[in-house]
Amino acid sequence: MREAAEGAPSFVHLPQLGAVGATLEIAGDEAHYLARVVRVRAGERVCASDGEGGLATLEIERLAPSLRARVIEREQRMRVAELELWCGAPKGDRADWMVEKLAELGVARLVPIEAERGRWERFERRRERWERLASAALRQSRSAFRMHVLEPLALEPALTRTPGAAARWCARPDGGPATRIAAAARGPTIVAIGPSSGFSQGELKRLQESGFTAVALAETRLRTETAALAAAAVWAAAACGNAGAPPSS
Amino acid sequence: MREAAEGAPSFVHLPQLGAVGATLEIAGDEAHYLARVVRVRAGERVCASDGEGGLATLEIERLAPSLRARVIEREQRMRVAELELWCGAPKGDRADWMVEKLAELGVARLVPIEAERGRWERFERRRERWERLASAALRQSRSAFRMHVLEPLALEPALTRTPGAAARWCARPDGGPATRIAAAARGPTIVAIGPSSGFSQGELKRLQESGFTAVALAETRLRTETAALAAAAVWAAAACGNAGAPPSS
Repeated sequence: MREAAEGAPSFVHLPQLGAVGATLEIAGDEAHYLARVVRVRAGERVCASDGEGGLATLEIERLAPSLRARVIEREQRMRVAELELWCGAPKGDRADWMVEKLAELGVARLVPIEAERGRWERFERRRERWERLASAALRQSRSAFRMHVLEPLALEPALTRTPGAAARWCARPDGGPATRIAAAARGPTIVAIGPSSGFSQGELKRLQESGFTAVALAETRLRTETAALAAAAVWAAAACGNAGAPPSS
Repeated sequence: MREAAEGAPSFVHLPQLGAVGATLEIAGDEAHYLARVVRVRAGERVCASDGEGGLATLEIERLAPSLRARVIEREQRMRVAELELWCGAPKGDRADWMVEKLAELGVARLVPIEAERGRWERFERRRERWERLASAALRQSRSAFRMHVLEPLALEPALTRTPGAAARWCARPDGGPATRIAAAARGPTIVAIGPSSGFSQGELKRLQESGFTAVALAETRLRTETAALAAAAVWAAAACGNAGAPPSS
């Protein structure tokens, strides 16, 4: 899967891209990545994304005293399909790699759900790390979009903010075939995954009343983070197929 | 996904199950798990799998000086569909969680591929850890089957041992829809994933000549371990749907 990027220019995440001709001062993680990891040189071109569909080609103007680049080309992409993943808290530190993988698979939003049987602990402390992982995943996947990690929400407020048109699924071992997620992956999709101890009966009832259809992701019982990733992978494969050939990178 | 196990008996991996009436001495990790983690008591019943389709109900006879149990019921399952995953080496230590997740998703065999652009380093040292992760995944997923991790193979010997009837896929960003994996998930399936630097042109040619069809798993570029997991998830969702409702645990 990685071969398409061979010889491709380096790719960075810059929230503020500016218009063609603009000069950008690049600092922090992205400057470190360009100067120390891929070792760009003045005059070299690199690609950048603002994580919101904006893409740019930049020309490096100088490396010191600060990294400066000029915008050569600009492009704006739109999402064809998007996945919002509602997720109860996995056990321990299993959320870190889950965030990385969900971002890589192109999930639009991760909504941490404060469930009756599982709370997201130390969220604020971990959020900064997750934002970095989401940016690293964007670089890795050369994507125009970056995953957003929302503030944890209880189920009711999450249901209240749900758009009516979204396809809704809830992962359950006794659900119908998860391949149904694929058929609906042309528009907005929401998949809800319980915390490590599962959703309560009351929460499951509320999900069902709110149009969430139960789907089984595997024949085996899955951990929260595995279920989240499996749902995202089923969706990603379908969204990719539905959108036709993937763009070359 | 976890709720089905509430109140369900504990589940362990015992390679030698024996017939109904047999007495088993349980040692090592599984004894520790039963005695220290789930704290079973004499007279209690637990479930066990030999990882090869064998399931048993055991009654704990005593805890000390060694954990001893008697086989009450025996059952033998057969795999309907099975997935063999050929995988080039991911970067760094990313294989550890990949092994855990592939095992959880019900992959039958992980075949580490020694690719031209990526070698599996320190395999022997890591293998013991992976065997433990596969056993832990079996406990977690209450599965009759345990993932096997084969010795690393170069591509040619791997191709030589491939049964003719298996459906064959190769993950490539320019491939067709990965939802095609789903349609074929009723029999044996092989998916090949390149190492972090990708398969060489020669390797890709050999895969194509050997009947491997290129499929794209996502619109974005995926890391080796993410691609492996995504392929397993797409297969697992389909195999589960094809097999009808999952067995209750």
